[in-house]
Amino acid sequence: MDCIFCKIVDGSIPANKVFENEEVLAFHDINPAAPVHVVVIPKKHIASLNEAEDDDWAIMGEIQRAARKVAEELDIADTGYRIVNNCGKNGGQEVFHIHYHLLGGARLAPLGVAKSHK
Amino acid sequence: MDCIFCKIVDGSIPANKVFENEEVLAFHDINPAAPVHVVVIPKKHIASLNEAEDDDWAIMGEIQRAARKVAEELDIADTGYRIVNNCGKNGGQEVFHIHYHLLGGARLAPLGVAKSHK
Repeated sequence: MDCIFCKIVDGSIPANKVFENEEVLAFHDINPAAPVHVVVIPKKHIASLNEAEDDDWAIMGEIQRAARKVAEELDIADTGYRIVNNCGKNGGQEVFHIHYHLLGGARLAPLGVAKSHK
Repeated sequence: MDCIFCKIVDGSIPANKVFENEEVLAFHDINPAAPVHVVVIPKKHIASLNEAEDDDWAIMGEIQRAARKVAEELDIADTGYRIVNNCGKNGGQEVFHIHYHLLGGARLAPLGVAKSHK
């Protein structure tokens, strides 16, 4: 499968990893949108939340746990952070392997729609 | 405890509910930031992801499952959506009972920091 995140999981593409266990991998985003921007993924290939199956929801919980752990390790837990999953076109999903963004290190933008849609 | 979301769970404050099971409740945000804006919460009071304990991560997975189900029911699954957890000050958390925002119905804003911090 030609999935960039699967290639990061199998090591054929390098990434700046910050957390890894049997099910979950986290690495710094190569195009950060905030002072801290880490991508947290399941090692299992799941295209998006729309494709998640019954067995996958526990992993989604483990992703939240990993994100909190990374926030603590990168010293942004006390100042605060945001965890975001983008699904499909309106969400702005760019890589079709589920990933949750962990953002922090500065006050994050208000929630809302893109300017061209306001 | 003087928690507005606990009061929605116990029914003492009304909400426009869209999903409910034993562990999770979802309702329309009273101040929507997108055409579809639903708040998905654990019925258990947990102040934020920073306070989540070992037993709570499975519930966080169930919240993702509930959000996907609501997206399907509100007919935004195919066009796409975003799920967001804000934790603490930099995340912009306003109610200290864990909640995940489900946003959709329009192209959502790019991820990033607030303008005053750029």
